[in-house]
Amino acid sequence: MDIEIATIGGYEEVGRQMTAVRAGNDIVIFDMGLNLSKVLIHDNIQTEGMHSLDLIDMGAIPDDRVMSDLEGDVRAIVPTHGHLDHIGAISKLAHRYDAPIVATPFTLELVKGELEDENKFGSDNELIQMDAGETMTIGDHGIELEFVNVTHSIIQAINPVLHTPEGAIVYGLDKRMDHTPVIGDPIDMKRFREIGREGVLCYIEDCTNANKKGRTPSESVAREHLRDTLYSMEDYDGGIVATTFSSHIARVKSLIEFAREIGRQPILLGRSMETYSGTAKRLGVDFPSDVQMVGYRRSIDQTLERIMNDGKGNFLPVVTGHQGEPRALLTRMARGETPYDLNDGDKVVFSARVIPEPTNEGQRYQAEKLLGMQGARVYSDIHVSGHLNQEGHYTMLDALQPQHVIPAHQDLGGFSGYVDLASNQGYTLGRDLHTTTNGNIIQLV
Amino acid sequence: MDIEIATIGGYEEVGRQMTAVRAGNDIVIFDMGLNLSKVLIHDNIQTEGMHSLDLIDMGAIPDDRVMSDLEGDVRAIVPTHGHLDHIGAISKLAHRYDAPIVATPFTLELVKGELEDENKFGSDNELIQMDAGETMTIGDHGIELEFVNVTHSIIQAINPVLHTPEGAIVYGLDKRMDHTPVIGDPIDMKRFREIGREGVLCYIEDCTNANKKGRTPSESVAREHLRDTLYSMEDYDGGIVATTFSSHIARVKSLIEFAREIGRQPILLGRSMETYSGTAKRLGVDFPSDVQMVGYRRSIDQTLERIMNDGKGNFLPVVTGHQGEPRALLTRMARGETPYDLNDGDKVVFSARVIPEPTNEGQRYQAEKLLGMQGARVYSDIHVSGHLNQEGHYTMLDALQPQHVIPAHQDLGGFSGYVDLASNQGYTLGRDLHTTTNGNIIQLV
Amino acid sequence: MDIEIATIGGYEEVGRQMTAVRAGNDIVIFDMGLNLSKVLIHDNIQTEGMHSLDLIDMGAIPDDRVMSDLEGDVRAIVPTHGHLDHIGAISKLAHRYDAPIVATPFTLELVKGELEDENKFGSDNELIQMDAGETMTIGDHGIELEFVNVTHSIIQAINPVLHTPEGAIVYGLDKRMDHTPVIGDPIDMKRFREIGREGVLCYIEDCTNANKKGRTPSESVAREHLRDTLYSMEDYDGGIVATTFSSHIARVKSLIEFAREIGRQPILLGRSMETYSGTAKRLGVDFPSDVQMVGYRRSIDQTLERIMNDGKGNFLPVVTGHQGEPRALLTRMARGETPYDLNDGDKVVFSARVIPEPTNEGQRYQAEKLLGMQGARVYSDIHVSGHLNQEGHYTMLDALQPQHVIPAHQDLGGFSGYVDLASNQGYTLGRDLHTTTNGNIIQLV
Amino acid sequence: MDIEIATIGGYEEVGRQMTAVRAGNDIVIFDMGLNLSKVLIHDNIQTEGMHSLDLIDMGAIPDDRVMSDLEGDVRAIVPTHGHLDHIGAISKLAHRYDAPIVATPFTLELVKGELEDENKFGSDNELIQMDAGETMTIGDHGIELEFVNVTHSIIQAINPVLHTPEGAIVYGLDKRMDHTPVIGDPIDMKRFREIGREGVLCYIEDCTNANKKGRTPSESVAREHLRDTLYSMEDYDGGIVATTFSSHIARVKSLIEFAREIGRQPILLGRSMETYSGTAKRLGVDFPSDVQMVGYRRSIDQTLERIMNDGKGNFLPVVTGHQGEPRALLTRMARGETPYDLNDGDKVVFSARVIPEPTNEGQRYQAEKLLGMQGARVYSDIHVSGHLNQEGHYTMLDALQPQHVIPAHQDLGGFSGYVDLASNQGYTLGRDLHTTTNGNIIQLV
Repeated sequence: MDIEIATIGGYEEVGRQMTAVRAGNDIVIFDMGLNLSKVLIHDNIQTEGMHSLDLIDMGAIPDDRVMSDLEGDVRAIVPTHGHLDHIGAISKLAHRYDAPIVATPFTLELVKGELEDENKFGSDNELIQMDAGETMTIGDHGIELEFVNVTHSIIQAINPVLHTPEGAIVYGLDKRMDHTPVIGDPIDMKRFREIGREGVLCYIEDCTNANKKGRTPSESVAREHLRDTLYSMEDYDGGIVATTFSSHIARVKSLIEFAREIGRQPILLGRSMETYSGTAKRLGVDFPSDVQMVGYRRSIDQTLERIMNDGKGNFLPVVTGHQGEPRALLTRMARGETPYDLNDGDKVVFSARVIPEPTNEGQRYQAEKLLGMQGARVYSDIHVSGHLNQEGHYTMLDALQPQHVIPAHQDLGGFSGYVDLASNQGYTLGRDLHTTTNGNIIQLV
Repeated sequence: MDIEIATIGGYEEVGRQMTAVRAGNDIVIFDMGLNLSKVLIHDNIQTEGMHSLDLIDMGAIPDDRVMSDLEGDVRAIVPTHGHLDHIGAISKLAHRYDAPIVATPFTLELVKGELEDENKFGSDNELIQMDAGETMTIGDHGIELEFVNVTHSIIQAINPVLHTPEGAIVYGLDKRMDHTPVIGDPIDMKRFREIGREGVLCYIEDCTNANKKGRTPSESVAREHLRDTLYSMEDYDGGIVATTFSSHIARVKSLIEFAREIGRQPILLGRSMETYSGTAKRLGVDFPSDVQMVGYRRSIDQTLERIMNDGKGNFLPVVTGHQGEPRALLTRMARGETPYDLNDGDKVVFSARVIPEPTNEGQRYQAEKLLGMQGARVYSDIHVSGHLNQEGHYTMLDALQPQHVIPAHQDLGGFSGYVDLASNQGYTLGRDLHTTTNGNIIQLV
Repeated sequence: MDIEIATIGGYEEVGRQMTAVRAGNDIVIFDMGLNLSKVLIHDNIQTEGMHSLDLIDMGAIPDDRVMSDLEGDVRAIVPTHGHLDHIGAISKLAHRYDAPIVATPFTLELVKGELEDENKFGSDNELIQMDAGETMTIGDHGIELEFVNVTHSIIQAINPVLHTPEGAIVYGLDKRMDHTPVIGDPIDMKRFREIGREGVLCYIEDCTNANKKGRTPSESVAREHLRDTLYSMEDYDGGIVATTFSSHIARVKSLIEFAREIGRQPILLGRSMETYSGTAKRLGVDFPSDVQMVGYRRSIDQTLERIMNDGKGNFLPVVTGHQGEPRALLTRMARGETPYDLNDGDKVVFSARVIPEPTNEGQRYQAEKLLGMQGARVYSDIHVSGHLNQEGHYTMLDALQPQHVIPAHQDLGGFSGYVDLASNQGYTLGRDLHTTTNGNIIQLV
Repeated sequence: MDIEIATIGGYEEVGRQMTAVRAGNDIVIFDMGLNLSKVLIHDNIQTEGMHSLDLIDMGAIPDDRVMSDLEGDVRAIVPTHGHLDHIGAISKLAHRYDAPIVATPFTLELVKGELEDENKFGSDNELIQMDAGETMTIGDHGIELEFVNVTHSIIQAINPVLHTPEGAIVYGLDKRMDHTPVIGDPIDMKRFREIGREGVLCYIEDCTNANKKGRTPSESVAREHLRDTLYSMEDYDGGIVATTFSSHIARVKSLIEFAREIGRQPILLGRSMETYSGTAKRLGVDFPSDVQMVGYRRSIDQTLERIMNDGKGNFLPVVTGHQGEPRALLTRMARGETPYDLNDGDKVVFSARVIPEPTNEGQRYQAEKLLGMQGARVYSDIHVSGHLNQEGHYTMLDALQPQHVIPAHQDLGGFSGYVDLASNQGYTLGRDLHTTTNGNIIQLV
């Protein structure tokens, strides 16, 4: 059976992920993502009403025209988790394919939201829920799609595995090797090792951190760091504000729990906070269902007014703005544009790292400066990455023993650490180790 | 009553700490430390047989000649904890003063060791044990010396407080604000706040990290990180080697415990490992008393041979060499100069950070390179600092409300972050905020 | 005779410089500058109509209220050169003092411009021209003010020296030690050495680069670098655009000359380009008087249209925007908002370094990204600093042998390199080496 | 005609360069270099007596066993210039091939030296001089070898071009695009453009600096920087010492000239100083033939004694040790181990940059520290790179318009900037843009 991998997007950047695997006549697409930075560098662009081709020209979404070179039928579109760089182009591209979207429940809910917000295109792809550990049959030639549970900075992330007669194709984006992930099950290394023994034809790897040494710590380490930080403020009776990635449900959960343990009522504020946490709540995941969430700006300001009246010391607002985004709530608070007054000694907890790019760094710097001008004390970098560092990559190679590996989710400079590592493990560039670019097709069998 | 502070050493560097406080006719000396880097830059110097004056000229130990400008009698020499930059000059300088050395039991044992190793000078200072929480009377004019419990990267660290009729002098070196320190009690913030309410004349602060934002995490965060790291190796059956600061008893304890939990026998190897952990064991602190320790080179090599024979997979050697020191055990292992063979996939855990100085960085880089050439996988930076970052300084100022503050344990560039912070809290440089240099006397009353 | 130095502004930052020297009853003020970053962090503030006190509260201009503690009469206000951090507060503060403004012709013209733009305050201070090498008498007690020629990144910079019966006060801001400065005379080290032999009571030093090793290169090095860069484009027949500091007349001159040598017509575009270069031209300094300058936005766009019609290959526009300022001309060009089309292979020369602060770095990064998206090739960092590095400081101390030194033009962290250097030369912090803060008065005699 | 490129060494590192081109039955080898860092990480290895296979195993010299896969006869071995990473393995590998070594005179002299020092192998390869601009016929099938003049940090560097019926193969290692190179002719861009018009099948590019933006300045910029630096010391009458790369004849020449212009006698000290400059002198290149050179340690110490007796102020020793190598002369001077006393204020000029690797950085840091402890003032980084930055790569692609490009002289991470640039110019990875590894064969025709 012919096996081909089309590396459509996310092979020259972190963002706009899209990969298609053809096994015989059956094709499965993994991820359809957005590269947000390509949108934001322009002033005031609204993507909701834009055409795919314009977004492709901007480099914002994957250029899926290479799909016409793959002979076969698309059987499924499989977003691996709910981050925008994996689902953000579904609303622009999925409607072109007569195939269901298959994802875990949380991811699927977020996809639904994306489809509802879309103004330009209508999509009638079927939406199919599938949980980690489950499988479904793809086409009529003995191909199975399996979801293996992984751990990432969002819940219900999976690595899809396509079992073909030629061996398994493991699509390894995005994950950290976490044995104590706060929400959900640990990464299913046992299953990966089994699949490794059964035979892996190809492994596509998340190389976001491939140039970072060592091993990414567990979410339990970030949680302990956060616990330690918030408990150290237990005796403070003024304002404490926290911010983190809205989509990071486990982190938001920890913030809610520790807020309560130190005697404060947590409130989630900001549109994306409401979107992600609301979804988690509706789905009944292991998340405090009784936490208040406020998404609209006017309601947010009313809530902040109420907090001021009731006493800041009784609350812990969890807000958007961890990258210092100019229009996010925390930045507005820093500029004194909300009813919430920051006073000398008030604490602001960034449970996030600056994404290392000069634009973000400049904006975050300004946000911290403005917070400092109000007297606020800033606690940053209470975070762990959601991506494997080199020792995770080493362990995955050791578990899967794949015949071929394809680094993804970076540009060539970002792949270089992975290529070094894989070369040391016996792989050879151009033979069984394939660095590639967007728009290529790699023939494996 | 006249109060003067002589800032003798460690006010232009991290290292060779020494400060004297005169209250009326009574003088107490805090710390007598060594600046090891001033020794190591020369080839093959052995300090044991060297004269104080030569070591002073090299900048290796404090220049205590300014003591002759202080009118009064030295009543006590008080090392705050057992690190060399606080006790390493006692063997060279203490004999000049007719005063007891007062310290916590663990610190005092290490001082004894220093005195025994000394070849040049003999010392007959009385050695007095005093625990955190205890006080002793100094002289006859109502002065009390109190030890307040603090948390640092070594056990039984204290901050000595001299209670004078003019208010308390708090000597704040070295500490982190740790509420869950793995061994021993949390930092005694309650007592600091009481002392603050009673009135603090002067606070001398540990500014090692004064240019670092945020708050130093608890040892519990490093412990969770270490636990996560070692558990991730649970299924590995080859060699695992760990290294950390020998004096960091809490960390060594965590290493021992997690080694056992993943089914390996920990063995401490290296002279300084034996010194510090042996002392901890003898004193009966909360430390696994049944762990094997080997200090001499020949015994170490025999032990490593035994490990090889019994199977590396059953052991976790905890060794010296976390900075890549050319003659330390780990570096010898990396060069293949010991009976312990490193194989492909073996793990080396650095539970330490490189002390950021190009010499160390070069040596550590070489050690890691050599380890990599043997196939070893390196896990670094599993560590938290033992020193307060800026938010700790903020909290201490808030608790103590001192009339005067003196930044210490850095050079002027290192003080700058503290001066910014203290200035924002209302202190004024030159009036009640005293940046100073080695060899000065500051008159407070 | 009493000698006091009031360190009013620019002792905790680079920006808003102001220092007053009292000798007996006579006071001279050196510089009245603006800290632009304190203005820009707020959205859309126009300083022209703002009150001094509000600007003082923002930290934008010096807090000169300490002047009331100096007993005597202000005899002169002496801006040392035309940069905003030295003259930008004159329009807000000078009217309070009944004293002439004394400066070199170029500086004085720029001061006039500042006074004309001011909306809030009217000033009737007399304006007095004085050239480097000249002196004037201050008051009736034998005090002389001398201008010593120095070299900086703007023409006609001087170091004012106040000769008093107690020795000279040398106000050393801002300079580089340049023996081949492209425009004007070399730094007058001969005169500094003479003054050193006559006796210097106090030297106030420009510590902008006090933490930088080595020696700042001459403008002739930047010129050779620029020559080499532009000549390497000699065969290119598409667009070349250059940007640099508008106030850097020597650099603009080099750009004009090399543009012509490679067969292109230089045109200066942007309001501040016109201000500074127009002033240089009017004053008849050694500057190409026949270069076209266009300041107003509409005229700029017309000029760019003409350039497009006549052929980009015949021109070299020298434009504003070297820091990627969002509203500057180069950034507008990068966004495609002007008639000038950038094509594949067009060259953009940044004869400037990014001022190292995250906000600038973010903006400059965006500007370069946008230029790259248009196909432009970017040549950056063709520049040398205008400030002394450590070896320049060493040489100045050696030449002047001052009794007292006061580091300025930085914050405490920025002073630290200077304090190390001066300490090694025998000065002692707190005795004859005075690190200070804004708003202090140092009594020398 | 078949055309194959064997990428033997230097495609995963900077060092041990070796590439073979087969055109039909004729093979030409470009470079046979050494990776010195692979030797130095071990203690006390002497390569002179070592076998090739051991050096190959260490990664120190190219693994040329892939040559057996190339069907044809080696017609020439062509070292492009005299740096060790290009000629350092000739003494170990050339004897295996029955082919002459063809090089420019200066390079050939250095090769002779290498062959003479070799203890293990004897070589009887013919040595053929060929100048830039000349050609020679290779084999009998119409293949010509041409030397195109380029500019690098050593004199007489060339880029060899193999003219085949299928187009030219341009071997582009190592160069900077210098139009004013101090010694020798400018880079021959006219000839490169002609070759481009004739048709280039393949271009192998020097990617050392492929991740560096902008354009490498000319040696004339380093020379102006050096002139400015040394003239700034004109009035100093104590010791001045300079160090630079011994092989950098143009730089050494500038040092000699400026030394004389400021009234000092230059003397070259150190074995490698004598080797390279002595060779330049013997060959009669544009180099001061009357300068004294001393290579042996005992003679060096005698010379330094004489300098001390005659007065340091009359001399400018140019010495080895620019990277702080522990056994180099400058480091010995810094440790006080030579008769040359460094005094307060003496100047040490590093006309070199630290090669950015932690080992070098550590050693250089120590050397500077030790120099500082003697009172010396250090002037560093008076240098420009010898390798193209990105804008040079852009211009070369524009000039040659090659059908295929192969990045070399780096590892994959180092290639990434080049791949980005070439991709923007229309090349496609895997099709006409070939990132490769050591030991590969790329078939072009």
